[in-house]
Amino acid sequence: MSSRVLTGITTTGTLHLGNYVGAIRPAIAASRTAGVESFFFMADFHALIKCDEPDRIARSSRAIAATWLAAGLDAERVTFYRQSDIPEIPELTWLLTCVTAKGQMNRAHAYKAAVDAAVAAGEEPDANVSLGLFSYPVLMAADILMFNAHKVPVGKDQIQHIEMARDVGQRFNHLFGQGKDLFTLPEAVTDAEMELLPGLDGRKMSKSYDNVIPLFEGGAKALQEAVARIVTDSKLPGEPKDPEGQALVTIFDAFATPDERAAFRAALRGGLGWGEAKQQLVAQIEGQIGPMRARYAELMAHPEQLEAILQAGAAKARAIAIPFLKTLREAVGLRPYTQTATTAIAKAEKAALPVFKQYREADGKFYFKLLSAGGELLLQSQAFEQGRDAGQWVARLKKDGAVALTADAPVQREASEADIAAALAAFQEEA
Amino acid sequence: MSSRVLTGITTTGTLHLGNYVGAIRPAIAASRTAGVESFFFMADFHALIKCDEPDRIARSSRAIAATWLAAGLDAERVTFYRQSDIPEIPELTWLLTCVTAKGQMNRAHAYKAAVDAAVAAGEEPDANVSLGLFSYPVLMAADILMFNAHKVPVGKDQIQHIEMARDVGQRFNHLFGQGKDLFTLPEAVTDAEMELLPGLDGRKMSKSYDNVIPLFEGGAKALQEAVARIVTDSKLPGEPKDPEGQALVTIFDAFATPDERAAFRAALRGGLGWGEAKQQLVAQIEGQIGPMRARYAELMAHPEQLEAILQAGAAKARAIAIPFLKTLREAVGLRPYTQTATTAIAKAEKAALPVFKQYREADGKFYFKLLSAGGELLLQSQAFEQGRDAGQWVARLKKDGAVALTADAPVQREASEADIAAALAAFQEEA
Repeated sequence: MSSRVLTGITTTGTLHLGNYVGAIRPAIAASRTAGVESFFFMADFHALIKCDEPDRIARSSRAIAATWLAAGLDAERVTFYRQSDIPEIPELTWLLTCVTAKGQMNRAHAYKAAVDAAVAAGEEPDANVSLGLFSYPVLMAADILMFNAHKVPVGKDQIQHIEMARDVGQRFNHLFGQGKDLFTLPEAVTDAEMELLPGLDGRKMSKSYDNVIPLFEGGAKALQEAVARIVTDSKLPGEPKDPEGQALVTIFDAFATPDERAAFRAALRGGLGWGEAKQQLVAQIEGQIGPMRARYAELMAHPEQLEAILQAGAAKARAIAIPFLKTLREAVGLRPYTQTATTAIAKAEKAALPVFKQYREADGKFYFKLLSAGGELLLQSQAFEQGRDAGQWVARLKKDGAVALTADAPVQREASEADIAAALAAFQEEA
Repeated sequence: MSSRVLTGITTTGTLHLGNYVGAIRPAIAASRTAGVESFFFMADFHALIKCDEPDRIARSSRAIAATWLAAGLDAERVTFYRQSDIPEIPELTWLLTCVTAKGQMNRAHAYKAAVDAAVAAGEEPDANVSLGLFSYPVLMAADILMFNAHKVPVGKDQIQHIEMARDVGQRFNHLFGQGKDLFTLPEAVTDAEMELLPGLDGRKMSKSYDNVIPLFEGGAKALQEAVARIVTDSKLPGEPKDPEGQALVTIFDAFATPDERAAFRAALRGGLGWGEAKQQLVAQIEGQIGPMRARYAELMAHPEQLEAILQAGAAKARAIAIPFLKTLREAVGLRPYTQTATTAIAKAEKAALPVFKQYREADGKFYFKLLSAGGELLLQSQAFEQGRDAGQWVARLKKDGAVALTADAPVQREASEADIAAALAAFQEEA
């Protein structure tokens, strides 16, 4: 069985080269691994927690979706959707909310950090806490559990939330699974070797340090201008330079093959000027980013294409979410009135149907048999000269059930009438 | 404009005669008032907070829905639905969760009561609090705000929650309404004169006192047995009895006309025996409840009828919820990528459409005119001998727009071509 990996994408903010190298590129590469079934979603319900600027919410989500696709996310291969297009997510959130202990939420890092900040500022502990901030780990649990993800790549600050998702899922399984696991319990994956790109000043590239190189915004010109501002030492052209520890070189490395890296280092040691080196760096980045930027511009110019991709992704995601939520609803007792007594598990068992097998024997004749869901032989047909005749009897038994089992039916009963009738009835219910 | 009244129905527990007299009967009577648009919903998402027995959740919901219908709730007249059939409710819950201050939830009575109980028992304050219990006032706000209810009949312990719904609605209006009210702010309605039926022992009829008369369960026999256990004084048949303060008499009153009440009192004063009086009481109750019980039995025997009624109710409710949630999503910024710049308000303004007016003048001839959304005259027709001809021109203009405005069209332009074309285009977008 393939391993399901689920990645949530923050839908606000603008993306820079550090995001691309540290998060987008490795996530897209991982989604191409054989045996991995990847889910990527635009976490726009989460965005509402921190942002009450509707136009920004809408604009950012669109730009970030376009960025991931332009960067090579293959929407055919992975399931790429907007969280807010899956109404089953908030519904599952409520089901999980009912089995989550409030005490557990009290211990969430994000919440505690907000409380600490308020207390330090002399305010009420919950002064700046919305219920959204307080309860979003449950929304996150729904994001993960809905698709039974095995692995969730997250930053270290999010490991606790994955543990909460495990706890909530486990509790739900315990309360409603009747001994079976409704939810897969997810594991956090934190990449210890995540590539951290330095910014213009050598510190980690981050908007809060104002040291970023933009990814697509501003075009090649903005890239060039940013690279021009990368801090180097003051050695002149012709002087040998030590490449190690230079932000410029580390950024170059992120876009170069081992051979290219070695050549760049050798050139610097040989006296390549910083200005010239920066031009080489721009060319190196542009080689990878340039074609993506063109695709990005195209997607931004054609929001209907982008929208169609996300809609198709939502349809893929909901093909999983809709039937699964149905099972979960039944498990907690939200059932059609026509079905009050059928538990989800009983239904899952019922889903294991009896089966007709048609085959040809060494004698050249055609036969069929009816096996119970458990594999027990219930009916054995006589021999038919024509396969078609055997097939017609199977069809009749499926359609009419035990009624078709007249005395002259060409079958031998191998189990009790009741067991046979029950098995045949299952086909009629199915139809 | 009619007044919208929304009533949530608890879906767990069993119903007794006190529930019928105190809640069900008056709510149904109120739903028949002219000018009132009533919404009744089975609050089964709420039921999950307190009950983790799936079969009980399912069974109770079904029995209680059947009870309300049997008691006379007119599903044609009102909108009667299961909360869990409206996926827009949990989605709106999340939108509201993001604008709700956690501090407000900290002050909710139900939560504080649970905390007090835990502290009194020497436990951690949140020991017995699920996140569902903590945050259900927001779910309740979504129930109410989704349908823009004006009035919500509640018990006194729930008034605070209606105030929370007002606060949340107001905050949402303020943040996202761009000066207009997206939500109607609801008012709590508490009926000071709510009829409280005494139980068998004279105290308020309540399951917790074990003094109830069942409503439908157990049939006429259970009714008879319960009534037999009503506590009276020990006066013998023939002795004059004081009817005042007798539980038996108060219960009789609840099912009797003023004349019947007077006659019953007179008979008791005249020496009617308690045994005989109890038989009269059974007959009196049975006269009202008996036919309902038969309908209840029928609905319970035909869950597919019950289910069909609830499904139809869900369709009615969603006809309101789906377009409204769409407006709300756009207001917060959850928009299709093809529409990132369209705000909800701009859309609402567009929804104010231009209008064609058809009329007959004193000259006996027929005319029409096209007015802008703001009431400005755009087109004035010539006179038609036949009203039908005027109607056909209106239909053509609505369908084909400005294209139909050929030189020989029987209308006079009263505004710019552009304004007229834009107004006509609005009809085509509508269609």
